[in-house]
Amino acid sequence: MLLLKTSDEGFEAKFTKVVRDRRESDTQVGRDVSAILHEVRERGDKALVEYTTRFDGHNLSTEDDWSISKETCEEAYKSLDADLREALETAAERIRAYHEGQLPEDRDYTDAIGMRLGARWTAVDAAGLYVPGGRAAYPSSLLMNAIPAKVAGVGRLVVTTPTPKGEVNPLVLAAAHIAGVDEIYRVGGAQAVAALAYGTQRIKRVDVVTGPGNAWVAEAKRQLYGVVGIDMVAGPSEILVIADGKNDPEWIAADLLSQAEHDPTSQSILITDDARFAAQVEDAVDLALMKLPTAKTARASWDAHGLIVIVDSLEDAIPLADRLAAEHVEIAVDDPEPLFAKLRHAGSVFLGRNTPEAVGDYIAGPNHVLPTGRRARFASGLSVLDFMKRTSFIGASQGALEAIGPAAVRLAEAEGLPAHALSISKRLS
Amino acid sequence: MLLLKTSDEGFEAKFTKVVRDRRESDTQVGRDVSAILHEVRERGDKALVEYTTRFDGHNLSTEDDWSISKETCEEAYKSLDADLREALETAAERIRAYHEGQLPEDRDYTDAIGMRLGARWTAVDAAGLYVPGGRAAYPSSLLMNAIPAKVAGVGRLVVTTPTPKGEVNPLVLAAAHIAGVDEIYRVGGAQAVAALAYGTQRIKRVDVVTGPGNAWVAEAKRQLYGVVGIDMVAGPSEILVIADGKNDPEWIAADLLSQAEHDPTSQSILITDDARFAAQVEDAVDLALMKLPTAKTARASWDAHGLIVIVDSLEDAIPLADRLAAEHVEIAVDDPEPLFAKLRHAGSVFLGRNTPEAVGDYIAGPNHVLPTGRRARFASGLSVLDFMKRTSFIGASQGALEAIGPAAVRLAEAEGLPAHALSISKRLS
Repeated sequence: MLLLKTSDEGFEAKFTKVVRDRRESDTQVGRDVSAILHEVRERGDKALVEYTTRFDGHNLSTEDDWSISKETCEEAYKSLDADLREALETAAERIRAYHEGQLPEDRDYTDAIGMRLGARWTAVDAAGLYVPGGRAAYPSSLLMNAIPAKVAGVGRLVVTTPTPKGEVNPLVLAAAHIAGVDEIYRVGGAQAVAALAYGTQRIKRVDVVTGPGNAWVAEAKRQLYGVVGIDMVAGPSEILVIADGKNDPEWIAADLLSQAEHDPTSQSILITDDARFAAQVEDAVDLALMKLPTAKTARASWDAHGLIVIVDSLEDAIPLADRLAAEHVEIAVDDPEPLFAKLRHAGSVFLGRNTPEAVGDYIAGPNHVLPTGRRARFASGLSVLDFMKRTSFIGASQGALEAIGPAAVRLAEAEGLPAHALSISKRLS
Repeated sequence: MLLLKTSDEGFEAKFTKVVRDRRESDTQVGRDVSAILHEVRERGDKALVEYTTRFDGHNLSTEDDWSISKETCEEAYKSLDADLREALETAAERIRAYHEGQLPEDRDYTDAIGMRLGARWTAVDAAGLYVPGGRAAYPSSLLMNAIPAKVAGVGRLVVTTPTPKGEVNPLVLAAAHIAGVDEIYRVGGAQAVAALAYGTQRIKRVDVVTGPGNAWVAEAKRQLYGVVGIDMVAGPSEILVIADGKNDPEWIAADLLSQAEHDPTSQSILITDDARFAAQVEDAVDLALMKLPTAKTARASWDAHGLIVIVDSLEDAIPLADRLAAEHVEIAVDDPEPLFAKLRHAGSVFLGRNTPEAVGDYIAGPNHVLPTGRRARFASGLSVLDFMKRTSFIGASQGALEAIGPAAVRLAEAEGLPAHALSISKRLS
């Protein structure tokens, strides 16, 4: 953990280093992934069988080895502990309600010169969701990816997920049942993303691929961007807590650790105007780490990437927060509004003392797939729009064409595009 | 030019080949670009100077070699022929009006359990627009990229454009003046995109890079996706004209040629239910090519990639059009509405006999930066949203947290994330 004070000499250089440090994958991953994509594109299912044996210790031969049926998902759902099933249902309902509010409106109007103009939104035909296996197999991720796709109106929803040594996660299957997933394939890694993007004999290609994954999965999505639509290149998780000294240090420590426990590369940052409070939080983190079952991961993250910044006033936290452009920003003060109004770059903001970030991970409603690695400067969280596309349209009446056609002809000629000019001038009287 | 009839044996295989053919860049470009990005990242301006000398024959030494001032742009604007200036102004006004209608609305509401939820849109801080030099230096492109950025509220708008042998295009400078561009650098190619994304000593980095370019520029954007936001990987232009036999063959021929004249890799496709009309269009294309100043390019494109498909009924055109997912689709019939209603995948649609695609390139208002290479299956044209990002927010009252917190704790525990659970349970009474 690094402790900085804005009033210290050398603060700017140290803070700049934090902002610039990219906790991202190396170029070797790029080469490996590139080879895997090539193999899957050329050899389809055969490549999937080989990689799945090699990486997951899982043999793809029978139908049940390849895929998980809707019936199996329904059984997993029915076998779930009632409390947990209810929790999943509540989460799904709230996520659905929030995302329904994102459905865009079409435009269709005729302007003053008689030109009909507009835009129509439609869902993509098919979407593929990557669901990690093993430790990071999160049913909440499945809901957060599948529900926006369903709300968008996607007709075919495909999940790929690795099942290491054949092991499946019943919670994920139950979530797939709730979300209405159409197909599940037991394939993971870059090879799964390649299968979704290119299609194989067994797995029909999709139009958009979303969902979290390890460095290979993220790199595969990056390389296939353009072949399919993707949600975003996702990196390690981050939380930035802006807090005054009137918070319970244990609460804030838990918030910081809730990101740190994800991965050793996760980053947890506290900015406060109260040095005494900062020390209390530091102590509370150390204390919590003694009992936390995920302490190994959380401690590695906190030691390597944890940061506390002491500012003179919480107002000074905002420009720093904008430079960090963090995935999650908590504003833990009595009245978060004035600080929130000034903040420009953040994936999602958690307002007030009663809104731990984890409530957004599961159940609040907004999406938990958010831009990481300072990408909130230009990117947004996953939404219904990621599963839709917009077709603009233009309909010129004879009068409208007469009104503005000559100007377009002039521009086309000036650009040296005579056929463009001709296609308009031929239609002018 | 390839002529297909849906009723012919072997149609499906031949049409599938057309859909699958990617008129895209090769892997050598990928390696070259990767090296250029690395050099610019490591060596900044020095790399720019070297590449600009080598590729553009332009020496970057004085301030005027590096950049073009706002004053120079204003002079170019004032020196413009009055008709042309008015045409540019009309185009800018109409583009602005259409894009203002794209500004998204924020959300902010409190749900039944007392949870405040919402989303706030903000503009990115800075955007970089790539403007090609030489033959493809289009003022219309500058307007189509810069105006949405301005409407979004982007504070700093940077243009990079190559000036081969020092040559500048006064029309582009005039357009930059009209659009309110803040900085123009005389750098092009992958090296310009790298400078915009990473920043150099002279060129401060931006958050989003948009704009057309050659294969190197497109590949640079693809590789830098995630470091910055980009509009889309753009490939060669396409037009698909769906027309009955009652059109003037010369009009439709001009429409087809308006794409073909862009580049030898462009693609022009006619689908019609009238074989006699198809032959007339073919003849009209040949005739027009005899007089067209851009015939060399247009003929190369038409010969290599031109396609006419004869269908039994225009209804049959729609599933083919959806598979082609073309950048531009004209529906040249008396009542385009029923066909348009069924079409799912297209960048932009041009309705009726009086709407040549070129009217959308310049002056109708909607953006002419559109998804190519079948990407309309999942991507949309450039819009104000490409220069903005959305921050979701959550504010839990004590009551709201009590209502759904326990369910979130259950899910966190089931996912094996105890610090997530702790951050909520500590706040529950």
